[in-house]
Amino acid sequence: MRILHHHPLHALSRVARVMLAEKAIPFESVIEKPWERRDAFMRLTPAGDVPVLVEEDGVVVAGGLALIEYLEEAYPDTPLLPREVARRAEVRRIADWFLFKFEREVTENLVGEKLIKRLSGQGHPFAPAIRAGLANIHYHLDYIAFLSERRPWLAGPTFSLADIAAAASLSCLDYIDNVPWDKNPEAKDWYARIKSRPSFRAILADNITGCPPPRHYADLDF
Amino acid sequence: MRILHHHPLHALSRVARVMLAEKAIPFESVIEKPWERRDAFMRLTPAGDVPVLVEEDGVVVAGGLALIEYLEEAYPDTPLLPREVARRAEVRRIADWFLFKFEREVTENLVGEKLIKRLSGQGHPFAPAIRAGLANIHYHLDYIAFLSERRPWLAGPTFSLADIAAAASLSCLDYIDNVPWDKNPEAKDWYARIKSRPSFRAILADNITGCPPPRHYADLDF
Repeated sequence: MRILHHHPLHALSRVARVMLAEKAIPFESVIEKPWERRDAFMRLTPAGDVPVLVEEDGVVVAGGLALIEYLEEAYPDTPLLPREVARRAEVRRIADWFLFKFEREVTENLVGEKLIKRLSGQGHPFAPAIRAGLANIHYHLDYIAFLSERRPWLAGPTFSLADIAAAASLSCLDYIDNVPWDKNPEAKDWYARIKSRPSFRAILADNITGCPPPRHYADLDF
Repeated sequence: MRILHHHPLHALSRVARVMLAEKAIPFESVIEKPWERRDAFMRLTPAGDVPVLVEEDGVVVAGGLALIEYLEEAYPDTPLLPREVARRAEVRRIADWFLFKFEREVTENLVGEKLIKRLSGQGHPFAPAIRAGLANIHYHLDYIAFLSERRPWLAGPTFSLADIAAAASLSCLDYIDNVPWDKNPEAKDWYARIKSRPSFRAILADNITGCPPPRHYADLDF
């Protein structure tokens, strides 16, 4: 069986899980705490980052973005990128936005400071970073609202990697109850549609020992 | 004429320039200082990041990784990724390494602290970050040496996006004379091969007003 090494509160890991589920590709889940730098894991990837996929034939795919593109190329049924080149670029532009810009401006400041530091035992939450993350999340939600008012899905007429990247990122924040859904009904409507997809079920079932999610996290009618 | 908005000391911008040159795609170069958040530029890309390509038909491609994949898909002659899916993943894994891991561990700490802060007038160099960058660069050079001892090019038998990403990143560091080439002859040999490629000429001709590169920067026999 192919194996996905991932961490439940890591956005790129969640993207890989949702892509595999959308494409109906079975996999065994191994939760990896990258900060432990486990020997067997480091042998798979010298970078030491999740996610890493190990295929049944032994092929190892490491590097989050490399894995996204690999999944799309190796399993082209149920495509998550459109066919036309300029539209593919628009999907990837929005995916980049969430996986890098949102990650840096919001996720690292909130999930990183509040939760990953606690789980890894590396340092204490840094209050100015948390304030920055709480301030920054609003304009990202506004951007989701802006896009979803103009298009059925974030990058165009079809559900795509852009929606998966944005939802995977936001779901990590929602796990620690840091998404002000009530202030942004358009973004909430879009996220409600993602939550109801079968591919998101495993994400909504995540429950980290000692750090349970808030009650609304898994609720489809939040 | 298509236009590339870029910054000369930004690794992803350099990747786009080298890819365009490898593929012999003519473009007009517009140097953008992203920290100025110029109105006309922000209208092209709400993220405000370089590089951005504007095609002759008006298509705008923003998001550095989106642009890399776009260039490969829109201009498939002179491919910079191999054909086979697992080998493409290996190229992208190494490109990810340099464009994200190296960027964060080395480039931001050195080019960011020493040069970008000065050019943008935003803050003063932070000595601990500079020390971290100078310490970190060694193991990245060791990784280049490790790979190039085993393979003709970083990701396998052919020159690829992996080499472009690594060389574009290192060239920004070399511009500020922070690459200890003498301590790593294998990495130096690999970089010498990249420097001699015609696609790298424009990179080696970069000269930022008030911040000239060291003499060896453009020298093919450095």
